Amino acid sequence: MKTQVHNFNAGPSVLPKRVLLQAQAELLDYQGLGMSIMEMSHRSAPFGALMEVHETNLRQLMGIPKNYKTLFLQGGASLQFSMVPMNLLPPDGSADYIINGVWGQKAIKEAKKVGAVRVVASTEDVNFKRLPDLEASSFDKNASYMHFTSNETIQGIQWSTEPDAPAGVPVVCDMSSDILSRSLDISKYGVIYAGAQKNAGPSGVTLVIIREDLLEKVPSNLATMLDYRLQAEKNSLFNTPPSFSIYLLGLVLRWLIDLGGLQKVAELNAEKAQLLYQAIDGSGGFYRGHAQPDCRSLMNVTFRMESSELEAAFAAAALEQGMVGLKGHRSVGGLRASIYNACPSSSVEALVGFMAEFQRRYG
Amino acid sequence: MKTQVHNFNAGPSVLPKRVLLQAQAELLDYQGLGMSIMEMSHRSAPFGALMEVHETNLRQLMGIPKNYKTLFLQGGASLQFSMVPMNLLPPDGSADYIINGVWGQKAIKEAKKVGAVRVVASTEDVNFKRLPDLEASSFDKNASYMHFTSNETIQGIQWSTEPDAPAGVPVVCDMSSDILSRSLDISKYGVIYAGAQKNAGPSGVTLVIIREDLLEKVPSNLATMLDYRLQAEKNSLFNTPPSFSIYLLGLVLRWLIDLGGLQKVAELNAEKAQLLYQAIDGSGGFYRGHAQPDCRSLMNVTFRMESSELEAAFAAAALEQGMVGLKGHRSVGGLRASIYNACPSSSVEALVGFMAEFQRRYG
Repeated sequence: MKTQVHNFNAGPSVLPKRVLLQAQAELLDYQGLGMSIMEMSHRSAPFGALMEVHETNLRQLMGIPKNYKTLFLQGGASLQFSMVPMNLLPPDGSADYIINGVWGQKAIKEAKKVGAVRVVASTEDVNFKRLPDLEASSFDKNASYMHFTSNETIQGIQWSTEPDAPAGVPVVCDMSSDILSRSLDISKYGVIYAGAQKNAGPSGVTLVIIREDLLEKVPSNLATMLDYRLQAEKNSLFNTPPSFSIYLLGLVLRWLIDLGGLQKVAELNAEKAQLLYQAIDGSGGFYRGHAQPDCRSLMNVTFRMESSELEAAFAAAALEQGMVGLKGHRSVGGLRASIYNACPSSSVEALVGFMAEFQRRYG
Repeated sequence: MKTQVHNFNAGPSVLPKRVLLQAQAELLDYQGLGMSIMEMSHRSAPFGALMEVHETNLRQLMGIPKNYKTLFLQGGASLQFSMVPMNLLPPDGSADYIINGVWGQKAIKEAKKVGAVRVVASTEDVNFKRLPDLEASSFDKNASYMHFTSNETIQGIQWSTEPDAPAGVPVVCDMSSDILSRSLDISKYGVIYAGAQKNAGPSGVTLVIIREDLLEKVPSNLATMLDYRLQAEKNSLFNTPPSFSIYLLGLVLRWLIDLGGLQKVAELNAEKAQLLYQAIDGSGGFYRGHAQPDCRSLMNVTFRMESSELEAAFAAAALEQGMVGLKGHRSVGGLRASIYNACPSSSVEALVGFMAEFQRRYG
């Protein structure tokens, strides 16, 4: 490669260099056992130990209470869009969905195939540039669960705290794009799910954190692979797990612990985002943030320029400087810098420097 | 590591060393792009090219006709146990299942949750040590499909050729443990599916090969992730795929092509299996093959000894010589050597040598 790459991909996205170096070093010989982790049985002692360490580290990092199960599944958030209602929405129930971006729309689309759903609120009419205003009366207090998306990668919108569902309504959250980016009170949630490929590791593994009492609501006769209760009973090893993705997720957890945990990484994430948003806000309108300032994502910084031609020129010139992944999502256009946990400050600094230079040339 | 390891794991299992070395070499820098393949968008040009090459190579290797789609999914064969009937078993239909081992039992168990199924024949009464005898009258000629398992890893039983379903009944095959191990006439099949972690790569990716006309039978309103037709329309990229597993699967396909294709690898597999079965048959009863000779698997060689104590001593002594994975599956006991494509002849030779030595000591 010619230039140093600054990876702003929205997912799969940059991984900590330390993690990749360790994976590379032991790719053919895991822990001196003479085999790759990919060549080992998922029923073997070393793989069992690996799973146990992962669970311990995940619980420690996120402060997961004892009455929650953690699952390592397959299929990404997209399969969870279906598994959540299959497991938790009974035929006589109704589920509440807050729609504040494309991922929330996808989630409710799949849920509708399973049962009755209701939109609590949607900000589609304002192109998802802010979060909805919610009142206690917005919610169905008898809902089987209330679902929201904590961070919308495409629009660059993030909840700074959980919306308040009525007492007794389990809160289900698609946390794919900001899990492990900050500390949360897990006890406020019924289910948290997340594809790993943004903040937690490579693609191919999906985290599910579920309060144990909800497992009792799972109907009988679900397909085993889609059944939270059975997956929990088997400790995610009903069938062969995605070993290498799980292994790498574990290296990311270890990296986060060594970094100082989620409060520390949240500070770093806030600093990176602030640097970038300041560059946007200080550009005199040359760069224009998409999200309303009080709803801005610390993970995906979305912005526009005067014309789509200028945006294309920006992305192309940035690419020449080794800055990858800055084109906005094909469904909305514009520009986007994804700056998840593993995106180093130096990449954000490089981008901010480039933005200033580009403005001097074209502003 | 102290000793050279001979890996006889049943899955995940040994991978070609060349594949692991290449993956290691380019783990942090795929094709000089300065990023790991795991850090790249699945919508990027390089990943798109990778998927295209994989499909081309898979089609070439297996001789897949043009009217078949190839999918790279998640969830393993276990999710296919449910997806097959969800997609292909209508409410008024019935599916035929041949049960010649534990995997067939698991498949029909999940299918029963979806619709009406019928057992064509089962060899459970003889502990699955042989394949069932089938006549034309054994089959339902109006079945929605006929399902069988081409190779049973736990019992070490393999079909040398496809069972003949009635004309017009699509043949569905769980080929998880012998896909890519020999040449087949794909046009005889309606659906072939396989978890990759035995002959095709690491865990985390599932191959599905499906005749296009069957996609028209998929009911509307299935969960998108479980819908063959939608997955085919999106070329397996409805959501983020398991990138690294797909990448490695591609390296295995390339390795197979360079080795000389499936006819060549089938020859090598037959030689390895013959060596091992000869050692069993020539031991004067010290080693006793589990499977009836005409049904023996070329992938999983299952055998027993006089007592479970002796079997345990064998497995322990073999492990000391670096021979991993020889204990039979926990559900049946005994011993098992899995000798998939990537298991080198030298490992089989080492095992045969060890078997003779062990017999001299304890026979």
